[in-house]
Amino acid sequence: MPDFTPTERTRVRRLPKRAAYDKATVYGILDEGLVCSIGFVVDGKPVVIPTNYGRHDDVLYIHGSAASRMLLALQTGIDLCVEVTLIDGLVLARSAFHHSVNYRSAVIFGFARLIDDPAQKNEALRIITEHIVPGRWDSVRWPSERELKATTVLAIPLHEASAKIRTGPPVDDPEDMSLDTWAGVVPAKLSFAAPIPDEQLSSTVKLPAHVANYTRRRNGHK
Amino acid sequence: MPDFTPTERTRVRRLPKRAAYDKATVYGILDEGLVCSIGFVVDGKPVVIPTNYGRHDDVLYIHGSAASRMLLALQTGIDLCVEVTLIDGLVLARSAFHHSVNYRSAVIFGFARLIDDPAQKNEALRIITEHIVPGRWDSVRWPSERELKATTVLAIPLHEASAKIRTGPPVDDPEDMSLDTWAGVVPAKLSFAAPIPDEQLSSTVKLPAHVANYTRRRNGHK
Repeated sequence: MPDFTPTERTRVRRLPKRAAYDKATVYGILDEGLVCSIGFVVDGKPVVIPTNYGRHDDVLYIHGSAASRMLLALQTGIDLCVEVTLIDGLVLARSAFHHSVNYRSAVIFGFARLIDDPAQKNEALRIITEHIVPGRWDSVRWPSERELKATTVLAIPLHEASAKIRTGPPVDDPEDMSLDTWAGVVPAKLSFAAPIPDEQLSSTVKLPAHVANYTRRRNGHK
Repeated sequence: MPDFTPTERTRVRRLPKRAAYDKATVYGILDEGLVCSIGFVVDGKPVVIPTNYGRHDDVLYIHGSAASRMLLALQTGIDLCVEVTLIDGLVLARSAFHHSVNYRSAVIFGFARLIDDPAQKNEALRIITEHIVPGRWDSVRWPSERELKATTVLAIPLHEASAKIRTGPPVDDPEDMSLDTWAGVVPAKLSFAAPIPDEQLSSTVKLPAHVANYTRRRNGHK
């Protein structure tokens, strides 16, 4: 039994061999991603907005200004869809038709609930901060009462989810194998350059390890 | 006058200084991105699916299997929302509250129409292929009649669009400036490693320039 029971809308029909419904795969994608795309319906029409997030156990946390239209809409408990995609490579085949992308994507259906309790809110903000920069929380000033009030935090329980993954080389038709066309994969990943200190940073503040060694964890699939 | 007249749903309310409605900015984001997130409504509920795309003039093209549930739904002309986000950096402030991400995102509202004519379909597939790997089309085998039939291509006219951008260093509260916390930006970008030739590639096929020098163009904002 998969961790997530496939439903009418999470069961992958196209290329079902690329599908996964286990938490290790779905959460591996969520944990490596930085930004998710959240879809919801306003006046019967779809809206998709990117936002940061963090995951702990079977809950995804998002946050933003208390004035955010998206968060005001989502906190009423309307249906939402969260999508996270990581690009792993460009797949260059001998035919245009067989070009593809190596990727890992997770799609979640559900609802959000408002986190009202200040201690729970603070903990969710810690989870989001640590998701983006592991080790960061203990070196920053924590949210004040005023800042907590200005921030809306929503929790999205992870119950209905699936992943879709493509890996590996191009798959060409046998009759194309002798073509004089270069074929292969151009590996891709989100990479990080040397940190740029804030111009007003005191020279006595050293670059901490959580910044100097920054990288996204890569669970499971490469 | 901006190229895209802001509408009720494209006008950015939160941090409107980060908004842009000109084609140079919106198309610069679309042209650098590889994957978009497409939102649509099924049975009153939101669905978000990632897919490749290409842009030419004021039209975005997407494609996929003729059996794709998303493409079957979108070709009926239902409302859709396309979102593309590029991550440019992590913004590490002295307070948890002022942490942010440098990003460029484009959000488009509209409809898709089916491209039925084989020549137009072929041209749209050329645009998508060239979007992902500029220079690729002329070195690959072009779609056969059978492949064209198996592929659905949709055109999304770009009429209602906006961009939202954050750049620059963290913006901290004055009273936090003396904290002993490292602050600054960790630059990020999608980067590409050395191409991996297909195992069955003949040794006589040389690595072409469009693969060897692969990079995403960066129009406008860094």
